[in-house]
Amino acid sequence: MKKIFFVTTNPGKMREATGIGRRFGITFVQNSYDCFEVQSDNLGEVAGEAAKDSFAHLKTPLIVEDSGVFIDALKGFPGPYSAYVYKTVGTEGVLKLMEGLKDRKAVMRSSVAYADGKQIKLFNGEVSGIISDTKKGSEGFGYDPIFIPDGKAKTFAEDTAYKLQVSHRAKALRAFCEWFSKK
Amino acid sequence: MKKIFFVTTNPGKMREATGIGRRFGITFVQNSYDCFEVQSDNLGEVAGEAAKDSFAHLKTPLIVEDSGVFIDALKGFPGPYSAYVYKTVGTEGVLKLMEGLKDRKAVMRSSVAYADGKQIKLFNGEVSGIISDTKKGSEGFGYDPIFIPDGKAKTFAEDTAYKLQVSHRAKALRAFCEWFSKK
Repeated sequence: MKKIFFVTTNPGKMREATGIGRRFGITFVQNSYDCFEVQSDNLGEVAGEAAKDSFAHLKTPLIVEDSGVFIDALKGFPGPYSAYVYKTVGTEGVLKLMEGLKDRKAVMRSSVAYADGKQIKLFNGEVSGIISDTKKGSEGFGYDPIFIPDGKAKTFAEDTAYKLQVSHRAKALRAFCEWFSKK
Repeated sequence: MKKIFFVTTNPGKMREATGIGRRFGITFVQNSYDCFEVQSDNLGEVAGEAAKDSFAHLKTPLIVEDSGVFIDALKGFPGPYSAYVYKTVGTEGVLKLMEGLKDRKAVMRSSVAYADGKQIKLFNGEVSGIISDTKKGSEGFGYDPIFIPDGKAKTFAEDTAYKLQVSHRAKALRAFCEWFSKK
């Protein structure tokens, strides 16, 4: 088993990474270092800078993941500030902002940044879908109860088995694991 | 006249600073360097880090100002991300989130950070008020059309003369000017 630090305080992200890592022989070790995050519309920049800062502090190879939901009709809101918006106005607030809007298209994006002191490497994933009219489902976390992936009728929170196959984060983490397992 | 760089791309902020600086014999020179901004609930931290980054780039004494409107019923949203929220969902979005809410209390906060390579110094200002039910007034900028300061019936965008006396930014800039003029 190869080991690597995953700098996150989110148990849901940790659970998803553990499930994916297992299939590649990779163990993710959680580290709760409160890393530096820049304000940027570019998730890759946020994750990359956070990984750089985390490495300076922890001095061991690690990944950081940043993700967000980008809603077309809201000009990309909440985007890179999805975590902040979630803890303040919540999914209820986002549904309120979407009231009466016909264009419900949204993209969930994830950037995984790897740092080892020699390089910063980014792995990105995304999944397209729509914002539901109401919250549905109790699994997953974050925006899962209001996000329905393209081609499906259920939210990520109603069908986490499907989420783990196609989600933005699963894609980004899988791309990282494929690369890291051969490193 | 003492001169100092004001790192901002916002003409409204520049105008307010010019008016205040004049009374202290201070000329603000606009600089549009796109400085680094961290994600933080603390405006002082955002402004301080931005000033540090700006000084590393410009190598001349300067100020940076960061501000936001913190709405009680929305757990402080949009707070440090007020500029991002303004350019995505706008004041209309904030009013939509406030629909039906009786508690309309809000605080506008401003942090001015000065950097000269030897020190970073912070000057803060705030003004309490409420979020109006509808947009009113056409002067000012940002959240001015939906913010009514305590003790008044008009928004900042309906009464900019009053705004310039009591606003969060006026207080922070005035505190800076008092200190800088004696420096």
